[in-house]
Amino acid sequence: MIAGPIEELVRLLARLPGLGPRSARRAALALLRRPDTLLVPLVAALEACARKVRRCSICGNLDTADPCAICADPRRDPDTILVVEQVEDLWAMERAGTFRGRYHVLGGTLSALDAVGPEELGVERLLRRAAERPGIEVILALSATVAGQTTAHYLAERLAPSGARITRLGYGLPVGGELNYLDEGTLAAALEGRQPVG
Amino acid sequence: MIAGPIEELVRLLARLPGLGPRSARRAALALLRRPDTLLVPLVAALEACARKVRRCSICGNLDTADPCAICADPRRDPDTILVVEQVEDLWAMERAGTFRGRYHVLGGTLSALDAVGPEELGVERLLRRAAERPGIEVILALSATVAGQTTAHYLAERLAPSGARITRLGYGLPVGGELNYLDEGTLAAALEGRQPVG
Repeated sequence: MIAGPIEELVRLLARLPGLGPRSARRAALALLRRPDTLLVPLVAALEACARKVRRCSICGNLDTADPCAICADPRRDPDTILVVEQVEDLWAMERAGTFRGRYHVLGGTLSALDAVGPEELGVERLLRRAAERPGIEVILALSATVAGQTTAHYLAERLAPSGARITRLGYGLPVGGELNYLDEGTLAAALEGRQPVG
Repeated sequence: MIAGPIEELVRLLARLPGLGPRSARRAALALLRRPDTLLVPLVAALEACARKVRRCSICGNLDTADPCAICADPRRDPDTILVVEQVEDLWAMERAGTFRGRYHVLGGTLSALDAVGPEELGVERLLRRAAERPGIEVILALSATVAGQTTAHYLAERLAPSGARITRLGYGLPVGGELNYLDEGTLAAALEGRQPVG
């Protein structure tokens, strides 16, 4: 008995992470109750994102410009690259506010099951960046999960010939935790206590 | 360091019920990762809702037609009106599938604090419907909260002169519910409303 367009809206909202069928219904009604202050602005924001947001061809960040604002910022140290799994992780690190280098966003972790290999993670792109600037530091800021650490180990091996100084985030990172869920203080501490690998 | 359009998207998503800043960020990235299968369809669904969905001038339900599909359905008993607070409640009742009458959606409860009076709840509209069909049953299916019950009490008083038969939903043990997890008020109501067995 839910009208077709509302049902379709509920179905799509329910596909967003963190929303189930019940919260999708509540969200749809919240939108329908506030057409001018919520629904129409949301349409505009979604369209602006679809039109303007692209992936940075250097680091894989999402931004309205390519290269992204971080890669294009001359004040950001080009000799330090922090490797993260997802854009969420980059955002979390930026909120922590202490990192002044640049990023490489993998977009995931190596996974035979999901057919995610080095190509999907832009590993060659990362290796080229490391080769172009000898003596660079590459900080492997991956989640302390099996997938994250397997990927970190693989990256450390691939990066070794470039002579890059390879580090990983230090103490503060809880074992089994995901970077994206950490508080800013812990992230800052982990960055400060980073350790050489191998 | 989040790009402007993404930040705006996150801000609007965070205003939806059930989404906080963190889940809004995750939802925004989920949308950006699936432009063709999620973002663009969501824009279309939102626009279709904005364009087509209206409030039923009889019952207050949301539908693409006015009167809504329920009010326009001759198989739905016009002599039983179930009064609910919100469209969510109407949807929940329709999912239960046993009610064959019609609805009145208040859109809220009486609240001096939020300046919600009888006009906002369409009380005159409900009274007219009751007056037009003498001997009608009005089921007050409002929440078992102070606000819900205050509103139900007010509606019962206003409806009394129409001669309508006024009922409320039965209180008691939720089906599938465990006694151990119920609050004292529900237990007392369930005891009070006990039924003969066999």
